[in-house]
Amino acid sequence: MTSVRVAVAGGSGYTGAELLRLLSQHPNVQLTAVTSEKSAGTPVSAVYPHLQGIVSLTFEALAPEALAERADVLFLALPHTKSMGPVASCMKAGKRVIDLSADFRIKDPRTYETWYQTAHACPDLIGNAVYGLPELHRSAIAQARLVASPGCYPTAAILQLAPLIAHGLIVPDTIVIDAKSGVSGAGRSPALPYHFPEAHESLEPYKIGQHRHIPEIEQELSGLAGTRGQAATGETAGVTIAFTPHLVPMNRGILSTAYARMKGKLDVVELRALYRDFYKGERFVRLLEGAMPNPRHVRGANYCDLAVHTDTRAGWVVTVSAIDNLIKGAAGQAIQAMNLMLGYPEETGLVAPGIYP
Amino acid sequence: MTSVRVAVAGGSGYTGAELLRLLSQHPNVQLTAVTSEKSAGTPVSAVYPHLQGIVSLTFEALAPEALAERADVLFLALPHTKSMGPVASCMKAGKRVIDLSADFRIKDPRTYETWYQTAHACPDLIGNAVYGLPELHRSAIAQARLVASPGCYPTAAILQLAPLIAHGLIVPDTIVIDAKSGVSGAGRSPALPYHFPEAHESLEPYKIGQHRHIPEIEQELSGLAGTRGQAATGETAGVTIAFTPHLVPMNRGILSTAYARMKGKLDVVELRALYRDFYKGERFVRLLEGAMPNPRHVRGANYCDLAVHTDTRAGWVVTVSAIDNLIKGAAGQAIQAMNLMLGYPEETGLVAPGIYP
Amino acid sequence: MTSVRVAVAGGSGYTGAELLRLLSQHPNVQLTAVTSEKSAGTPVSAVYPHLQGIVSLTFEALAPEALAERADVLFLALPHTKSMGPVASCMKAGKRVIDLSADFRIKDPRTYETWYQTAHACPDLIGNAVYGLPELHRSAIAQARLVASPGCYPTAAILQLAPLIAHGLIVPDTIVIDAKSGVSGAGRSPALPYHFPEAHESLEPYKIGQHRHIPEIEQELSGLAGTRGQAATGETAGVTIAFTPHLVPMNRGILSTAYARMKGKLDVVELRALYRDFYKGERFVRLLEGAMPNPRHVRGANYCDLAVHTDTRAGWVVTVSAIDNLIKGAAGQAIQAMNLMLGYPEETGLVAPGIYP
Amino acid sequence: MTSVRVAVAGGSGYTGAELLRLLSQHPNVQLTAVTSEKSAGTPVSAVYPHLQGIVSLTFEALAPEALAERADVLFLALPHTKSMGPVASCMKAGKRVIDLSADFRIKDPRTYETWYQTAHACPDLIGNAVYGLPELHRSAIAQARLVASPGCYPTAAILQLAPLIAHGLIVPDTIVIDAKSGVSGAGRSPALPYHFPEAHESLEPYKIGQHRHIPEIEQELSGLAGTRGQAATGETAGVTIAFTPHLVPMNRGILSTAYARMKGKLDVVELRALYRDFYKGERFVRLLEGAMPNPRHVRGANYCDLAVHTDTRAGWVVTVSAIDNLIKGAAGQAIQAMNLMLGYPEETGLVAPGIYP
Repeated sequence: MTSVRVAVAGGSGYTGAELLRLLSQHPNVQLTAVTSEKSAGTPVSAVYPHLQGIVSLTFEALAPEALAERADVLFLALPHTKSMGPVASCMKAGKRVIDLSADFRIKDPRTYETWYQTAHACPDLIGNAVYGLPELHRSAIAQARLVASPGCYPTAAILQLAPLIAHGLIVPDTIVIDAKSGVSGAGRSPALPYHFPEAHESLEPYKIGQHRHIPEIEQELSGLAGTRGQAATGETAGVTIAFTPHLVPMNRGILSTAYARMKGKLDVVELRALYRDFYKGERFVRLLEGAMPNPRHVRGANYCDLAVHTDTRAGWVVTVSAIDNLIKGAAGQAIQAMNLMLGYPEETGLVAPGIYP
Repeated sequence: MTSVRVAVAGGSGYTGAELLRLLSQHPNVQLTAVTSEKSAGTPVSAVYPHLQGIVSLTFEALAPEALAERADVLFLALPHTKSMGPVASCMKAGKRVIDLSADFRIKDPRTYETWYQTAHACPDLIGNAVYGLPELHRSAIAQARLVASPGCYPTAAILQLAPLIAHGLIVPDTIVIDAKSGVSGAGRSPALPYHFPEAHESLEPYKIGQHRHIPEIEQELSGLAGTRGQAATGETAGVTIAFTPHLVPMNRGILSTAYARMKGKLDVVELRALYRDFYKGERFVRLLEGAMPNPRHVRGANYCDLAVHTDTRAGWVVTVSAIDNLIKGAAGQAIQAMNLMLGYPEETGLVAPGIYP
Repeated sequence: MTSVRVAVAGGSGYTGAELLRLLSQHPNVQLTAVTSEKSAGTPVSAVYPHLQGIVSLTFEALAPEALAERADVLFLALPHTKSMGPVASCMKAGKRVIDLSADFRIKDPRTYETWYQTAHACPDLIGNAVYGLPELHRSAIAQARLVASPGCYPTAAILQLAPLIAHGLIVPDTIVIDAKSGVSGAGRSPALPYHFPEAHESLEPYKIGQHRHIPEIEQELSGLAGTRGQAATGETAGVTIAFTPHLVPMNRGILSTAYARMKGKLDVVELRALYRDFYKGERFVRLLEGAMPNPRHVRGANYCDLAVHTDTRAGWVVTVSAIDNLIKGAAGQAIQAMNLMLGYPEETGLVAPGIYP
Repeated sequence: MTSVRVAVAGGSGYTGAELLRLLSQHPNVQLTAVTSEKSAGTPVSAVYPHLQGIVSLTFEALAPEALAERADVLFLALPHTKSMGPVASCMKAGKRVIDLSADFRIKDPRTYETWYQTAHACPDLIGNAVYGLPELHRSAIAQARLVASPGCYPTAAILQLAPLIAHGLIVPDTIVIDAKSGVSGAGRSPALPYHFPEAHESLEPYKIGQHRHIPEIEQELSGLAGTRGQAATGETAGVTIAFTPHLVPMNRGILSTAYARMKGKLDVVELRALYRDFYKGERFVRLLEGAMPNPRHVRGANYCDLAVHTDTRAGWVVTVSAIDNLIKGAAGQAIQAMNLMLGYPEETGLVAPGIYP
């Protein structure tokens, strides 16, 4: 296979470090540059000793046009609202772009503005962006020049609910998503809630009903609801969710527990068959029946582990999903999209099993 | 105040150790005996070095009648289904009994049998038992000879939902309780799921819709629903819940996040006022507005911290509660009941603040 | 007993919070004020939700003279080099002062200057200060107006080595102290090394041979060596140590493992008898033989747990000590000193057992 | 390159799981069988969900002769004293064997008997075994039919001290090795010390001066001392160490801090140059100067990170090493030996960077 030149913008956060780690092991990738505003001029291995002997680049300041010249594919792991400009520059330079921020995930600019409290700088580009969840948008990703890689919580939540929504098996306004994340999800900038003695032996919800991943989940679930004819007008079916994220004392991993009231009585055996059918052939979705999804089984791996349970006594279907927030929830999924865009086998560079224990 | 002789049966588990720790500091208590089948003959301080210099007793084998002679009050921290017999013996001896197992919590023997898969050995005693949650049953506890101390999850769940249920503000069949517990909740017997490398950097739900604390929660919430006239027939109103517990990598603490769809639009300010009113004068319920309930703030303390939030966009009320599973969820609450039974100020021996960080 | 008015300067760090927690439970203490530069104007319970319902004070800015008027005893938990000035002010006002910084621990101003890289502002006061380790300096503390409360590592290290040094049983230049601390020892200000994902599943030495607690340990051990006539000139005997602290992924606790080559063959049974004799009557030193000292057994308690082992094959004596860095290593020990200064029973307000697990 | 058939005996512990994970990703390996007494008949993916979709084998009972027929190379991850028999069977069948137990590490059968309290069953085979530390015995490993793969602590300890010993720079009887290990080092069998609530927020030394890894470390260090002419008689130079392992609340990783008194004044810059020279060309030894070795930087990787520090004031040299106990301390190092034995590039299948954070 041919090799591709890849640059990473915003490489000094945890997602950036994971991009560097995974891309350095990808057989078709030549890493050409990595940027970081605060670490510009410092070797990657000085910031990240685990990459000593692996990545020999030095962080540089971000100059989008110049960066675009040195790469065929650009990964942008920049903060929300800071990514729009560089994306536009790279697109103009004719390069393929995979944006890991939220800036191009939301199709409706007004929704973006409501949740991110800033006007979108290049709304015309939004239409070109494909939501980078291969299990739902594989062929569109393969054609895309711009991929908006999903958030970590949305990846876990959408995959666990998609089959139920697509088949119309649950009462729409009863969806509760109780999600739990390790602390790396909050990034690498020190702050009191993530100070070790505060976050250890500690557990707490945050942004109840207000987390910015909500519109992304609702958009995708609504799309799935709409495709089955619930919204013949072309509008989405308007799935609305209760969503509460929690901060859990572990480094990595998301566990998402989703509840919805069943329409009628659903049989768990049939439901599991339906999930198997929905995710047939998916390399990175594992359906568990004997074991329970647990972040410890996907640590460092690109899998989303899923399980389906029913509580027939009380009338609920309960699904559980586990991902590594930095892999399937960020860097791994972005590389999966790159593989699709470039025609590489989808799993290239992503086959490493999880690190357990 | 007078002093009372107290014995603890089943003192070698974590709840037993907490009973010993707290009772040793109680100004009116004289600890006279503690039993443990597997540690009989071993000094408490050899099993529990943290109690060296604090508790000088030696574990002995359990002989209920003989034990009852040496105490005025007996705490039983025995496994479910193993407590019924000793409770009966102690009651017959005319002593006050506080049972920390589930054996006398469930009013309906058939429900007990369904969930605990054993017939109740002394169903006639169940009627004498008072469910030991002081915030709901204070005066009954004060009169009781037998108190069935609540489970850890039920304490967190009932307290967070009681005002909403009692005022009829939520749609009954939409209650979801997503609860998370530290590993001490699983007891002190080693087993693979609690082996450090399995439980650390790990997070997993268990017994989805099947946990034995479910009937206890439903019984108490149904009682609250019934008292407001929803069930004029004298039957309980039949609250049914979706309940999923999770194992979280921390030693102590329960965080419970409960969701329910609002009847109509509820104002969060009014809701909080309603909670303040409901828990007015309660020494061990703290309503938080600026901060979020978090087990780290109640570690080692007898508090239940509560917060109320609304998601008006999606139509849900979300309440959060945090307790120390071994204190307000077990040993502390049992001592609170003892204080009521004996006429001591309710907070005697329980005023220590939490250990933070 | 009479009551005493107490103020705490520098109350918003972890040591300050522990002073507030412990002092609020002390039967003879009336907390009158607490200062914090960054939290001035904020209620204590807003910064520390675990103290809601316990401490009703509001943080205020530090004005030493005014503060001194409102208290009989002042605890200063200020940063090193920032404490000298306020100490002098409070001393001038005639109050008893317990300083938890290092500013008055080092008897030789040149040594202080070498290790703290600043000239001492009030060297004349140093002579008045008593090193606040009750097990070594009880009667001097009882007479003192100014107590310099020991550092956390020194408390663990000095207590584990004192009997060996005092009896001249080890080869002086072979002392190695390998100490390990939980992250709360680094304080409450967020910084990258203490960011949860960095400090969790992580373990690392720091300041090898350069930690500022070294001169304090050497001063006290040298004093002990000197008292047995090794330094008849009045100079200290000049004990020099290898000392390496490590950051361990736990919230609280110090474990210190100290090694020294034996002079001759030492019998472990005799050594333990010698330790028992040395610490006879000490309320807060527990000598363990069956169990190993472990921070989990002193969490939240004022104990120092000690064990003595010999490796006769290789010729070493190995001692192990465990303390709670925030209690016996800081706030608890300071209160122990206060009790001595005021003539209260030494253990007043400090008898709470550890919180386990 | 050609492919080799590999079997793993004793595959259900953590080391076995790591062997399966790494071997499944090795480009020249065909996994043919894996044994486990307690899991015989169970699919690997049922015991280890993280290997679902990766390893499709089923655990079988161990029958050494039959197993040997199905493999060219056998890895034995069996308990100490249980490995001798199967090793002998596999050797007799003419296969290459890599034994991860201690059974063939100790050259002197009497020393083995002293520390393992059992007579060696096949002392004649010991002479054929090569101690599998490639950095010291590379060419012998390449020629070996039987490799005794080193223990985890010895790997960290020997690599950090080898250059100092080989150059005769330290006072021999002053070596102190204070080692710290994550809990996976204790294996996967649940027991009280490794029960989560016991091992979390906990830290404790064990087997002070009595750990079975001591003779292995002393044997190798003595050999190094001997090679430089300190023992012209052919006898080893008899290095004796003080060694204390500690259990640290993390899943993986060993950090070893070693102290020794310098002969004369050693310059840290020269020492580091000497280490660079000693480990020149070593793919898996990284010498750190800016950063400190920390298990978090080698998690899941085959590196040993090393740093050298001097405490000239007190006269000590202090070295620090970090490894992943399950990789460079077990499975990775064993595969490194296999690569040498089979003439594959030494790093084949071992190049994955660490998983951070």
